[in-house]
Amino acid sequence: MKISARNVLKGTVVSVEKGATTSHVKIEISPGQVVTASITNAAVESLKLVAGGPAYAVIKASDVMVAVD
Amino acid sequence: MKISARNVLKGTVVSVEKGATTSHVKIEISPGQVVTASITNAAVESLKLVAGGPAYAVIKASDVMVAVD
Amino acid sequence: MKISARNVLKGTVVSVEKGATTSHVKIEISPGQVVTASITNAAVESLKLVAGGPAYAVIKASDVMVAVD
Amino acid sequence: MKISARNVLKGTVVSVEKGATTSHVKIEISPGQVVTASITNAAVESLKLVAGGPAYAVIKASDVMVAVD
Amino acid sequence: MKISARNVLKGTVVSVEKGATTSHVKIEISPGQVVTASITNAAVESLKLVAGGPAYAVIKASDVMVAVD
Amino acid sequence: MKISARNVLKGTVVSVEKGATTSHVKIEISPGQVVTASITNAAVESLKLVAGGPAYAVIKASDVMVAVD
Repeated sequence: MKISARNVLKGTVVSVEKGATTSHVKIEISPGQVVTASITNAAVESLKLVAGGPAYAVIKASDVMVAVD
Repeated sequence: MKISARNVLKGTVVSVEKGATTSHVKIEISPGQVVTASITNAAVESLKLVAGGPAYAVIKASDVMVAVD
Repeated sequence: MKISARNVLKGTVVSVEKGATTSHVKIEISPGQVVTASITNAAVESLKLVAGGPAYAVIKASDVMVAVD
Repeated sequence: MKISARNVLKGTVVSVEKGATTSHVKIEISPGQVVTASITNAAVESLKLVAGGPAYAVIKASDVMVAVD
Repeated sequence: MKISARNVLKGTVVSVEKGATTSHVKIEISPGQVVTASITNAAVESLKLVAGGPAYAVIKASDVMVAVD
Repeated sequence: MKISARNVLKGTVVSVEKGATTSHVKIEISPGQVVTASITNAAVESLKLVAGGPAYAVIKASDVMVAVD
């Protein structure tokens, strides 16, 4: 499947923290650069996400903001 | 200003493409890894974004999805 | 690629309207039920989206609201 | 109330799963086609959402992605 | 229609700026406090939005971030 | 830090409700006008958010919808 989301960042799952319905998944996309995703527990199970496994962080361009110092 | 968004990725503006009301800004956050942001033209002007300048890509954790091959 | 987004609705592209930087793509997901997506022109080109072609509307669960009469 | 969101899909609530602060609501919008919404518990209570009741899934066009095989 | 979005802020349309496919609508929700919405041109026409008219800014709680100085 | 998000509404934290992984923070942005944010517990701790403290509600323009009666 090919998706319209402009940002598909390859990395490695660092941690999966499960809550009651929502999980936080951390993906290291380059050395020292970690992206946090808040997704449903159902998605974590469906994708069989575990620390150490490969994964992509996927982000729609309209959900990215820009900041400057 | 400190923001709740869990993802603040430091990088360099690669390009700014202005449309009628919406601009696409590309930020290189590590060698070869580019993030595209779709923001208002007003924001581009307010932040004085130009290619070559430093910038952060800011993304709320609930806007990040995860994918696997 | 398998994605964490809980909503992947199969359908047919009904129309593609290109703007300066942003396109509106309409996908019929069941008879008479059309979903509108606002995505970048770059994504339209990358996915080669044209009216009549098959496509999925993909939506993260945290982006779905609920309403009642 | 009339809303700018381009996607208002009529259906029936299939299930409501409450978490600590966040609920997952499933709405069947056509036979076999179910949309999952992640909303606050407060919204579930305010809208009195229960399985079997009528409801709309509401999605802003800029939150819809497109995918192809 | 009653919506799950937790934030429904009543105000007055200050301006409507139309682009090729996307419009920017400014709504004053209290004296001096203006909210900008980026919505489709189709929505602007459907809701007949014009400067001076009453309108609500509607925002899902999961789309609100928090910042401190 | 200056952010591209067009909506930065100054206010006072009214309440912080922590869940398993997600918190709901209410910010009063003008007398009687309260905005609810759904953010990670990690963000609440990082920003040291407590009732009574000053805070901004930050919202990207593309996440704001418009409604009329």
